[in-house]
Amino acid sequence: MSSHHIIREKQEPALIIADGEACSTELLGQLLEWSPTVMVLDGALKRVLPLGIKVDVWLGDFDSSRDFDEAVIDYPFEKVHTPDQLYTDLEKGIMYLIEKGYPAVNIVWGTGMRMDHTLNNLHSLKKFSDQIKMVMMDDYSVIYPLPKKFIKWYAKGTMLSIMPLGKATTIKSKGLKWEIDHRSLELGDRTSSSNEAAEDGFVEIEYEGGFLLMMESN
Amino acid sequence: MSSHHIIREKQEPALIIADGEACSTELLGQLLEWSPTVMVLDGALKRVLPLGIKVDVWLGDFDSSRDFDEAVIDYPFEKVHTPDQLYTDLEKGIMYLIEKGYPAVNIVWGTGMRMDHTLNNLHSLKKFSDQIKMVMMDDYSVIYPLPKKFIKWYAKGTMLSIMPLGKATTIKSKGLKWEIDHRSLELGDRTSSSNEAAEDGFVEIEYEGGFLLMMESN
Repeated sequence: MSSHHIIREKQEPALIIADGEACSTELLGQLLEWSPTVMVLDGALKRVLPLGIKVDVWLGDFDSSRDFDEAVIDYPFEKVHTPDQLYTDLEKGIMYLIEKGYPAVNIVWGTGMRMDHTLNNLHSLKKFSDQIKMVMMDDYSVIYPLPKKFIKWYAKGTMLSIMPLGKATTIKSKGLKWEIDHRSLELGDRTSSSNEAAEDGFVEIEYEGGFLLMMESN
Repeated sequence: MSSHHIIREKQEPALIIADGEACSTELLGQLLEWSPTVMVLDGALKRVLPLGIKVDVWLGDFDSSRDFDEAVIDYPFEKVHTPDQLYTDLEKGIMYLIEKGYPAVNIVWGTGMRMDHTLNNLHSLKKFSDQIKMVMMDDYSVIYPLPKKFIKWYAKGTMLSIMPLGKATTIKSKGLKWEIDHRSLELGDRTSSSNEAAEDGFVEIEYEGGFLLMMESN
């Protein structure tokens, strides 16, 4: 693909490369092509730079920067030092983008490896869902917050998991293989994982309380 | 290590191999040596059999059993067919072991890859914590439910994440680098990830409401 697209600053989503499991170079390449701003979180930098990726912002508490030699630390990107222990690196990254006026962000390397980080990262999708459009992607799924009314076209058989963070109430669906009818879903009790689009067509989901993530699996 | 230990049936934890990211062969080997019963969940069988592991129980809805040739399906282990869609494969596996009287189970391959499965699996540790001792292990962490009063010896600097599932309240710690003092923790708001044992010695954690997971990271 050509790398000469005209990208208008802040109209395409920014890209955050977090410090979890690396995704395929194919997925990363697709996202990089369209991202006006690439932010790398803390220790991930040492895995990102060898890939030849142009990094715009490096953000973190830089605890792990001892591992970098000075030439790398002097690389000409913006360095945002965020030593605050009250927020995770991903939260700080998202807050930075919100403050700079970005309307949307894609997040990769946000899942896998350390499960404490993974849990925190998935819940960050809930925390900031009113302030910025967020999509987290890995090699298995595309994950994003479900608005209270959701409609999208899917091919028949597309695997869809509707996952509450905590509990979500009065959920109603149309177009799923296993419809949800005014039921509550709760992690650890009942979720709607490995559901499917019943036909080629629109899937509609509405709910009243709590919070749902959509996970579209490959 | 010798494989001639005398293992008394059901005194050592059973082992469940779930269908997430494979762990190192070293970790798997250590666990296999001591497990009187090895249960493999559904589609994971096709990744387990080539490793030459002796499987005792194969459990699942066998949706993916189309992928196996008949010779494999005829392998002499117990086959537990659980088509019930109300429970995940891991939940069915744990319930099977509870019913058979096992006091404890180690779980591997329960994290990574599909995040919908991972979230369900982590929350299964909460669901059955009153009925069986469960420890989930991957290459990065050892994860288990924290009882309301917990005490354990750690070497200084051991990385400990105290992660609420949902919310946990009135938490008090002794021996952590960043102590928790009667505070609540809630996923998506505040967790105590990447904490540490402050010194060589005991770490004590008490809490009143909700549920906490301990994640000891390597």
